[in-house]
Amino acid sequence: MSGDSTIRAVRLTPVAFAEPPLRNSAGVHGPAVSRLVIEVETAGGAVGLGETFGDPAVLAAAREAAQRLPGVDVFDLAGLGRVVGVDPLVDGQPDITGPAEVREPGTFAGTTRVKAYSAFEVAFLDAQGRLLGRPVHQLLGGRVRAEVEFCGYLFFKFGAHPGAPVDDWGEVLDPAAMVGLARRFADEYGFGALKVKGGVLEPDAEVETLRLLAAEFPGVALRIDPNAAWTVPTSIRVAESAAGLLEYLEDPTAGLTGMAEVAAATPTPLATNMVVTSFRQIRRCVELGSAGIVLADHHFWGGLRATQQLGAVAASLGLRLSMHSNSHLGISLAAMVQAAAVLPGLDYSCDTHYPWTVEDVVDVAGAPVIKDGRVTVGDAPGLGVTLDRDALARMHERWRRGGEQARDDVAAMRRHVPGWVDRRPRW
Amino acid sequence: MSGDSTIRAVRLTPVAFAEPPLRNSAGVHGPAVSRLVIEVETAGGAVGLGETFGDPAVLAAAREAAQRLPGVDVFDLAGLGRVVGVDPLVDGQPDITGPAEVREPGTFAGTTRVKAYSAFEVAFLDAQGRLLGRPVHQLLGGRVRAEVEFCGYLFFKFGAHPGAPVDDWGEVLDPAAMVGLARRFADEYGFGALKVKGGVLEPDAEVETLRLLAAEFPGVALRIDPNAAWTVPTSIRVAESAAGLLEYLEDPTAGLTGMAEVAAATPTPLATNMVVTSFRQIRRCVELGSAGIVLADHHFWGGLRATQQLGAVAASLGLRLSMHSNSHLGISLAAMVQAAAVLPGLDYSCDTHYPWTVEDVVDVAGAPVIKDGRVTVGDAPGLGVTLDRDALARMHERWRRGGEQARDDVAAMRRHVPGWVDRRPRW
Ligand SMILES: [Mg+2]
Ligand SMILES: [Mg+2]
Repeated sequence: MSGDSTIRAVRLTPVAFAEPPLRNSAGVHGPAVSRLVIEVETAGGAVGLGETFGDPAVLAAAREAAQRLPGVDVFDLAGLGRVVGVDPLVDGQPDITGPAEVREPGTFAGTTRVKAYSAFEVAFLDAQGRLLGRPVHQLLGGRVRAEVEFCGYLFFKFGAHPGAPVDDWGEVLDPAAMVGLARRFADEYGFGALKVKGGVLEPDAEVETLRLLAAEFPGVALRIDPNAAWTVPTSIRVAESAAGLLEYLEDPTAGLTGMAEVAAATPTPLATNMVVTSFRQIRRCVELGSAGIVLADHHFWGGLRATQQLGAVAASLGLRLSMHSNSHLGISLAAMVQAAAVLPGLDYSCDTHYPWTVEDVVDVAGAPVIKDGRVTVGDAPGLGVTLDRDALARMHERWRRGGEQARDDVAAMRRHVPGWVDRRPRW
Repeated sequence: MSGDSTIRAVRLTPVAFAEPPLRNSAGVHGPAVSRLVIEVETAGGAVGLGETFGDPAVLAAAREAAQRLPGVDVFDLAGLGRVVGVDPLVDGQPDITGPAEVREPGTFAGTTRVKAYSAFEVAFLDAQGRLLGRPVHQLLGGRVRAEVEFCGYLFFKFGAHPGAPVDDWGEVLDPAAMVGLARRFADEYGFGALKVKGGVLEPDAEVETLRLLAAEFPGVALRIDPNAAWTVPTSIRVAESAAGLLEYLEDPTAGLTGMAEVAAATPTPLATNMVVTSFRQIRRCVELGSAGIVLADHHFWGGLRATQQLGAVAASLGLRLSMHSNSHLGISLAAMVQAAAVLPGLDYSCDTHYPWTVEDVVDVAGAPVIKDGRVTVGDAPGLGVTLDRDALARMHERWRRGGEQARDDVAAMRRHVPGWVDRRPRW
C-alpha cells in the first residue's frame, strides 16, 4: 500500500440480510433488508468501506457516482460532493411544518443523493485512515469519549414472517412480552437505556409497557417512538400518563407545528428524526419549539463531518443530540461509533438495530462489540472493520435473488393483515 | 522527519511590528502591533505554525497551555481543547443585546482562551499537513475554491505617529485623500472590493467618501464599518444616504437590538463582527434579525474547523458569511486563506490588514501573495509558509524592548489628541 490517495476503483455490492418481523406504526419489517456496501480503493491500495440504504434510488445514485469517482482523491470530500451532486448543508428533506405532510424521513427524493454521499464520505475517511494508519476519529479532530453508549432498541414483533416458522425471539405483542424481550436485551448487552418502538399497540398499552419496564429495570432510561402515530391530544395525554417515565418522547405526532403543540404542553423533552433531518429544517424547528432533541444520523445528514457540523448547530441553538438508527450492518455501526466518539454534545445513548442483525459483512475480528451497553472507540486504522468476503458474497447472492426492492413496511404488513392501511395519526 | 505526531516542543515567540497610525472609532493604532508566533514541533520533526493576538492575557493563556502540550498528538484537537480549557462551541463572548454593552470583540475574558486555542489549532493542522505532505485544506475536507478573494481595507489615518516623520502613506483624513489611498491599493493589489473603516469623520463626510469611491471605482463593491460609532437614527440616515452604494453596512450601531432596529429600517444588508463573535450569540441574532451577514474569523471562533462549523450554522440559519481581520502577519493570512478555501458559504471577499504589514515573520518564498485581489490556494504541505528566523528574531527583539502591552487605541489616540474619549455612539 503506497501513499497515492487517488481512487482507482469503486465497488458497489448490494446485500440482503434477514431480519425479524419488527413492528412500527407504518407496518412491519419484511424478511429481508437491503443495504449497499461500498468499497473505495486508492491507487496506493488502501480500501475504504461505506454502507448505506439499499433502496433502488440510492443504488442508482451510488452507481452514477461510482462511474465518476476514479481519479478523485480520497482527501477531497468537496470533490465527492461535486461528483454526487450534493451539498449536505443545503440538500435534504424540506420543511415538514404541517401534519398533512407526515412522511418517513428518506422518502423525499432530495434525500437520495445525501444517502449515497454519506456512505462515500465514510468510505473516503476510512481510506484516509487506512492510508495514514490512523483511526477515523483522529481525522475528525479527535475523540471526546473512549466509549460510545448504545440504547436497547425494543420492537413489538410478530412471531414469524408469513409462512415461516416462529423465530427465536417469538411473538412480542403485549406489555409483558416486551418486558421479556427487554430482559434478553439487558442480559446480553447490558444496555443502560431502552427505547420502545411505539405506535403499535393502543397508547395505553404502550404506557403500561413503559411502566412495566421502569419497574423491571430501575435506573434504566426509557424512551418511546411511535413515529407520528398519535394526534396532538393523544400525544399530550400519553405524555401526562408517562410523566416521569421517559428521558424523551420521540416523534409522537406529525409535523413541526403538531410537535410544537405537544412540546408546549408537556415537560417531557421531545426528540425527532422525522421533522428535522436536514440543516435547512432546523431554524423553523427552533422558532416553533417543536423539539429540543435532534437525532443525528450520518446516513441522513451527509456523513461524519456533517454530523459534527450538526453538533455545532445544535450547540449554537441550545438543541440536544441523540442518534438515530435504521437496520444496518457492522460498517454503519463502526461509522456511528466514530461519529459519536467526536460529538461533544451527544447527550443520550445512541439507537442501534444491531442486536437484530444476525449476519454481517464485516469480519468478526475487529467488528464492534456492544458490552455493558457500550462500544469501545478503538484506535485501529480507519473504521477498524474489514470485509468477510464469503459473507459479502453470500449476502449479495441473497440480494440478487430478491432483486432490487425498496423497503415497504406497509406491503409487508398486508401479508400479515390483509387490507392494512398506514393511517397516521391512528390514535 | 518521521511519522511520530506526538508533540515534543512548543515555542512561543511574541513579536512586534510597525504599523501606520490607522484611525477607527475608538482611536488610532499605535506604532507597534504585538502578535504571538507559535511553533509546535512533533517528535517526528514536523513543525506547525500558528499566529494570534499578542495581548498579555492571550500570551499568559498560551504559555500555560504550552507547558502542558508536550506528549499530546497533533491529530488530537479535542485533547488540545482540554489542555487549553476551551470548547469553541460553548466558550467566547456572551450575548451583547443592549447598546450599553458595546465592547470590542475580544475584550471579554471568555475570548482569551479561544484566541489561544485557535492559534494552536492552526499549528496542529499545519503540523499534520507537514507530516502527511498535504495542504491543510485537504485535512479540512478539500477546497471549494482555487482562489480566495480579498477586500482592500481602507483606513483614515494620521500622517505620522507622534514624534515620527510622516509615513509613506501620508495623512488620509478627508474623502479625497481616501480616494487617493484607494487608488494606490487598487493599483498595487487589484482589489475587487473596498472597505472603509468608518466612524472617524462626520457621517456625511464618510458617505461622501463612499460616493467618491463608487465614482472612481465603478464595479468595485464597497462596505463601511464605523464600529458602532453611530446611533440608530444616524445609522438609518446613513443607510438611506448611501443607498445603492454598499454591498453591506458593518456594525453601524451597538448591540443586537440596535442593529435589529437599523436592519428593519434599511434594505442594505447589515454585517457584524461585534455583536456575533461566538456560537452562543447566533440564535439571538437570528431571532432579532440583527444582521444577515456574520464575519468569520478563525482567531475569534476557535480555529479553522470551528470556522467550518460556523459555515454550517450560517447555512442552516440563512446567514451569509464574510471574513474579519485584525492586524496580522503572514501565518494568519495563510490560515485565513485555508479557512476561506473550504467555506462553501463565503459570499463576500475577505478583509485583511496585510497590505499595511510592512515586515513579516514568514519567508518570502511561499508567503501568500495578493494579486488581482486574490490569493491562490496552494497545495504545499500544511499552511505552506515557513519562518524567516532572522525576521522572527528581529521582531521578537522589538517586542522585548516594548514589553508586554495590550492593544490600546484610546491611549494611542490621546498622544495625538489629548483628552480623547472613546465615546460611542459619537454621532
Ligand atoms: Mg424515530
Ligand atoms: Mg468590523
